[in-house]
Amino acid sequence: MDVDALEAAARDAGLAPDAHAYYSTGADDELTLAANRSAWNRWRIRPRVLRDVSGVDVSTTVLGSPVRVPVLVAPAAYQRLAHDDGEAATARGAAAAGTVMTLSTMSTVTLEDVARAVPNVPRWYQLYVHRERADTERLVDRAEAAGYTALVVTVDTPELGHRARHDEAGFVLPADMPVANLVDTGGQAGRITDYAATMFDPSLTFEAVQWLVGRTRLPVVVKGVLRGDDAAAAVEAGAAAVCVSNHGGRQLDGAVATADALPDVVAGVAGRAEVYVDGGVTRGTDVLRALALGARAVWVGRPVLWGLTLGGADGVRDVLARLTEETRLAFTLAGVRSPAEATPDLLVHQPWF
Amino acid sequence: MDVDALEAAARDAGLAPDAHAYYSTGADDELTLAANRSAWNRWRIRPRVLRDVSGVDVSTTVLGSPVRVPVLVAPAAYQRLAHDDGEAATARGAAAAGTVMTLSTMSTVTLEDVARAVPNVPRWYQLYVHRERADTERLVDRAEAAGYTALVVTVDTPELGHRARHDEAGFVLPADMPVANLVDTGGQAGRITDYAATMFDPSLTFEAVQWLVGRTRLPVVVKGVLRGDDAAAAVEAGAAAVCVSNHGGRQLDGAVATADALPDVVAGVAGRAEVYVDGGVTRGTDVLRALALGARAVWVGRPVLWGLTLGGADGVRDVLARLTEETRLAFTLAGVRSPAEATPDLLVHQPWF
Amino acid sequence: MDVDALEAAARDAGLAPDAHAYYSTGADDELTLAANRSAWNRWRIRPRVLRDVSGVDVSTTVLGSPVRVPVLVAPAAYQRLAHDDGEAATARGAAAAGTVMTLSTMSTVTLEDVARAVPNVPRWYQLYVHRERADTERLVDRAEAAGYTALVVTVDTPELGHRARHDEAGFVLPADMPVANLVDTGGQAGRITDYAATMFDPSLTFEAVQWLVGRTRLPVVVKGVLRGDDAAAAVEAGAAAVCVSNHGGRQLDGAVATADALPDVVAGVAGRAEVYVDGGVTRGTDVLRALALGARAVWVGRPVLWGLTLGGADGVRDVLARLTEETRLAFTLAGVRSPAEATPDLLVHQPWF
Amino acid sequence: MDVDALEAAARDAGLAPDAHAYYSTGADDELTLAANRSAWNRWRIRPRVLRDVSGVDVSTTVLGSPVRVPVLVAPAAYQRLAHDDGEAATARGAAAAGTVMTLSTMSTVTLEDVARAVPNVPRWYQLYVHRERADTERLVDRAEAAGYTALVVTVDTPELGHRARHDEAGFVLPADMPVANLVDTGGQAGRITDYAATMFDPSLTFEAVQWLVGRTRLPVVVKGVLRGDDAAAAVEAGAAAVCVSNHGGRQLDGAVATADALPDVVAGVAGRAEVYVDGGVTRGTDVLRALALGARAVWVGRPVLWGLTLGGADGVRDVLARLTEETRLAFTLAGVRSPAEATPDLLVHQPWF
Repeated sequence: MDVDALEAAARDAGLAPDAHAYYSTGADDELTLAANRSAWNRWRIRPRVLRDVSGVDVSTTVLGSPVRVPVLVAPAAYQRLAHDDGEAATARGAAAAGTVMTLSTMSTVTLEDVARAVPNVPRWYQLYVHRERADTERLVDRAEAAGYTALVVTVDTPELGHRARHDEAGFVLPADMPVANLVDTGGQAGRITDYAATMFDPSLTFEAVQWLVGRTRLPVVVKGVLRGDDAAAAVEAGAAAVCVSNHGGRQLDGAVATADALPDVVAGVAGRAEVYVDGGVTRGTDVLRALALGARAVWVGRPVLWGLTLGGADGVRDVLARLTEETRLAFTLAGVRSPAEATPDLLVHQPWF
Repeated sequence: MDVDALEAAARDAGLAPDAHAYYSTGADDELTLAANRSAWNRWRIRPRVLRDVSGVDVSTTVLGSPVRVPVLVAPAAYQRLAHDDGEAATARGAAAAGTVMTLSTMSTVTLEDVARAVPNVPRWYQLYVHRERADTERLVDRAEAAGYTALVVTVDTPELGHRARHDEAGFVLPADMPVANLVDTGGQAGRITDYAATMFDPSLTFEAVQWLVGRTRLPVVVKGVLRGDDAAAAVEAGAAAVCVSNHGGRQLDGAVATADALPDVVAGVAGRAEVYVDGGVTRGTDVLRALALGARAVWVGRPVLWGLTLGGADGVRDVLARLTEETRLAFTLAGVRSPAEATPDLLVHQPWF
Repeated sequence: MDVDALEAAARDAGLAPDAHAYYSTGADDELTLAANRSAWNRWRIRPRVLRDVSGVDVSTTVLGSPVRVPVLVAPAAYQRLAHDDGEAATARGAAAAGTVMTLSTMSTVTLEDVARAVPNVPRWYQLYVHRERADTERLVDRAEAAGYTALVVTVDTPELGHRARHDEAGFVLPADMPVANLVDTGGQAGRITDYAATMFDPSLTFEAVQWLVGRTRLPVVVKGVLRGDDAAAAVEAGAAAVCVSNHGGRQLDGAVATADALPDVVAGVAGRAEVYVDGGVTRGTDVLRALALGARAVWVGRPVLWGLTLGGADGVRDVLARLTEETRLAFTLAGVRSPAEATPDLLVHQPWF
Repeated sequence: MDVDALEAAARDAGLAPDAHAYYSTGADDELTLAANRSAWNRWRIRPRVLRDVSGVDVSTTVLGSPVRVPVLVAPAAYQRLAHDDGEAATARGAAAAGTVMTLSTMSTVTLEDVARAVPNVPRWYQLYVHRERADTERLVDRAEAAGYTALVVTVDTPELGHRARHDEAGFVLPADMPVANLVDTGGQAGRITDYAATMFDPSLTFEAVQWLVGRTRLPVVVKGVLRGDDAAAAVEAGAAAVCVSNHGGRQLDGAVATADALPDVVAGVAGRAEVYVDGGVTRGTDVLRALALGARAVWVGRPVLWGLTLGGADGVRDVLARLTEETRLAFTLAGVRSPAEATPDLLVHQPWF
């Protein structure tokens, strides 16, 4: 999928410049933002031939839920900036594509409305552990009540990174577009920076994971891990999965690219939990690479937002369908019949271009 | 040979834009297309001096047939797009240059007509194993009857790669230019994608090689191998040779460059078969490098098509003659008197520029 | 901190072109100047999560003096070119930011006047060992008398490097802007090249460090070391600290970048002295990297000069405050609560971009 | 020395475009031409401090002859294209700079006239071993008679490389500018390609070195070696020195850069002969690097030709004087007091920029 063309089309279709700046920016010099993409391509593929690929099947399960493709929709804030239907449209698009969306706490549609939009599919809910744990507990209870099937706790955001482009663009959430899930805890329209500084708890340790695991009957995914030792600690605290992520290059600029961090995390987890990865995934070959390095699935964020801008739920579905088709083709041409056959011998690391 | 100047000259000489797009495109982001060329240059040459190069002889044999230079003509589809005489002209040019052409199944001239054009020279015939093996058997029988001396089976195309530029150019084979060898099996003018999807058999395994070896009295070359284990399996299935190829970067984008895959394949074959390589060969020094890495010969595709556009059979011969002269000069200046002296100590890998 | 934007702002604010050329130039082809900056970014950060970063504290001590941040102000000549208050303003800005400035011997304000500007803070004084040691002794005595708390001896300047851009700009210190500390030893306005050639002693050995250590009651910092063996020798000669420096790329072009030299120096010192580093530090993440590689603090030069140009003492304070805030944020996002927790496992070397 | 500015100045001063093309061209894609220069910069310098550099002395000896700096003038053809006095001016410039010039056999001034221009200095003479050894013998006898003190035999030119730019420029030596040393053996004005093809002996082996060593009382330098095994063979055949050279990138494009080949050659020679290196040397730091890698001296070619164009003998002397001064400064700033102190620990290989 030519994601740059997709992004350009979204801008042409009327995505507001400050919304675009908010979605696309990375931290500081955006070195990690760029590295996330190029790191995939530095893993060259060693395709197999003559493996009977007539029945290639890229479907898998994530935390027990079947998905048509190992490509999930990453949580992303403020989706009504891209389309009036916002997160509800994204949820419908993901469901139509046969995969799982994680709804951001920073949603501009309530988690209950999103649940009503796609009542009978697996849906994951992303949250932060707040200074007031009761705030988080309320969100956990609401997510459980609304039928979400997993909780994703983001751990790379003790405070927000410095994101040059959206600061320059002066991005502020419009007054008529509140952070819907948080209106009872101060999530009115405004600057995400202010909210994060006030509400997120920078004193968290792995005890918080343990607490959350004990507080919910849902499996917990720990998102934002870049090291094997941290991944092991998350598993030991009860995580059912970890997501290798540097928050799309939006937190610590200079952080290692996710494709480069993935093998270390996979080794740290040692098969005790599922491992996902996000950051810079734009092609079906990237999905194949991620699986060959040990991931169960990838998450995609920005491409989904461009699709949402372009066509609402249908646009999201189309983007995911293109990635599904690319993934199927990549598997076929690499002689890989199923995710189980995506093993490390498929890759060789060549850091040059 | 300055292949970019040659390509530009072919376009100036009237090669249709969509034909050019078809010939030149790679898959997706064309990373492998570019890597194929640069990978050769990352192998720096350590020339020998004072080796009596007065009698440098770059001739060799391929499957027992003598060739003036270890540069063969790769199979390429639809050559009448480049010149009215199409594959027949290419065959005459290759014969004039003293080397072997492999005729593509996707030829726009029948294999019999090509045979009549160059009756008394070694000629190889490329084919796919079709869903209906009888379709392939008919082609084998025709090739044998027409005096072809080897069969090349392409194994990297369970389906076609996604080739951005020719899709954008909307390339469709003209109605008056059928795929001549396949008129009896549905090879009318049309989209190669459709044909491949309908006819090629994605369920092939190495058994198909074994089957073909048993079905023909000709030696079988397995084309499209990028791994040592696959090369070994091909040899064990009876292949007389393997060709290291990623289909000119047209199948799986992100696949390893052929120059980088070659050593692994040579190790896998372990002297039990001949090894060829194609992809990005533009200079006599590339030929020297390929032989130093263990190849018996290189195959060239696109440069031949530019020569065909520019001058028909004479243009093909000229391109091959220039590569022959460059190869001879490269051997001379490197102190290498014959292909047998092209050994790995001639090279050092420096991945930077 | 976007140091290029800061530099551009300083030029827009009226920094004279020849002063800018003097400050910004590197030696010869400026390869080391550029490498100093990029070398930091080649060390990728492996952030930790869930470490309770509510109380991140980036303060430390240098030679026993507390500083709010491990970012010191490097000695730099001729600061009245940037602002009328020159080095006195820089001293006030550094004090306001809670850190230590090293005053250059090539100051355009006397060391006594600078001391009067910031009477009650730790201040370090930089000097060269002159051919006439009595000249150096006089400076040592004056620095001690004026309450400076450490001496920094620069050892990478047996003579000046060849600095293309300030030579081309024909830089000469104005007649009304003498090198204030040296008026008694020939430091009138003029070419720094001439002064260095006349006064600096190129015959120095580590004996000179020993001599200086014996001559002063102040701790001695040896600045300009790029090798572990030299760092060990400096320590054995009595140095309390060494500063890894290539003089901002102004001396030997082609010299190793300071970020790359740092680990070797840290190993040579083996905990027996403090280690600082300068060169190319522009971001809080660079400060984190330097500490992770074993430095006690970084020194910054040029960014301070741009701040001085833009706002005198306030401008210097603002630049340092921005670096302090960036350092705090980098620590927070990397899960590092204090300088003591900045250990080598935070980094991985990836020399590509 | 900014060699690109020097080259531009020479062109501005009236160097004919075809002469410039002849001097500056490399073979084919000019990859080795470019690599020669960048390879030096990939060796980063680890300067020493506090080494008493008050008496830095960069002088050395080559084959027993004292030179002021380890920078010799490489043989280069057709120097009257650059200046009316041609090779005689270059010889005077080299003598004025206190170093040794090697006169090319392809000189446009006779070797006797060059000898008369600089009667009392060491002078080396470069030759090829011709098909007719008597032709070479005559040149040996003339060189000995004219007081040349060493013979340099070029061994990387069994035939000429393919040099795109001078072929495109249609370079032909003017009728009134014969190859002065060869008028008795067919060296009239004309194409160097034709002469080389007719006269040079491609059948040479190391026996030819042995023969030449036995035929002359002068020490023999073997120029054009890029491998340790060849260097060892040259020494065993009686060579007093070898010069690591790829003919300035003019012979085999893709050949390893000389800076990268040097360590292997030094290892092969194992102290039994002197080792020189040419190719891409433009800075005093390059001279330091070459010596640190084991060379006794570097040779420079093109920069001398630009100096010759600009000022005849004085221009040559100025270029060499600048390199001498740069070399002295590089030694001083690296803490290296003499060539003997230029040891491998001064360098670290960092292939990136």
